[in-house]
Amino acid sequence: MILEIADIRILPGQGEAFAAALQHALATVASQAKGMKGWKVNQGIESPDRFILQIFWETLEDHTVGFRGGPLFPQWRAIIGPFFAGPPQVEHYDLVAKSAD
Amino acid sequence: MILEIADIRILPGQGEAFAAALQHALATVASQAKGMKGWKVNQGIESPDRFILQIFWETLEDHTVGFRGGPLFPQWRAIIGPFFAGPPQVEHYDLVAKSAD
Repeated sequence: MILEIADIRILPGQGEAFAAALQHALATVASQAKGMKGWKVNQGIESPDRFILQIFWETLEDHTVGFRGGPLFPQWRAIIGPFFAGPPQVEHYDLVAKSAD
Repeated sequence: MILEIADIRILPGQGEAFAAALQHALATVASQAKGMKGWKVNQGIESPDRFILQIFWETLEDHTVGFRGGPLFPQWRAIIGPFFAGPPQVEHYDLVAKSAD
């Protein structure tokens, strides 16, 4: 299991609409992707136009090859892309450790 | 509950030592802080010198006032600070939504 973190800056003042669109895109599009194991959306307190999207994937390639290169990606971007203030910054991470909580 | 995300860039090649130091600092210092509810450490796949530290706090002030302004903070920084390649980028986030997982 690997973690995708997407650091997304959106157009000012569109936080509520983007949050709804993102949840819709996750539930109807990304959830269909092979290896997509779960997700979490956080919104900035200091920067309300900044969202951190975390998606758990079975393998790195499930995201970078399967999802990005497949037919779901244009549908995904069509829903959330119009809100972007710039290209999201996306990298992938291994879990090192976590507390018992 | 709020989420602190610290985006930490460390000196090249120090990933294993930093991961151990960070877990030590979390277990022995940060865990004593009022309102600290849990944590998670991820290491970059594309950027192995990049770590994302997530800490859950009861309130924003538990971190920004209580922890940063209290006696634990110098101890915390003494353990992990020597690994930093630059100042960590830290912001706080509200949970918008997450999947059932």
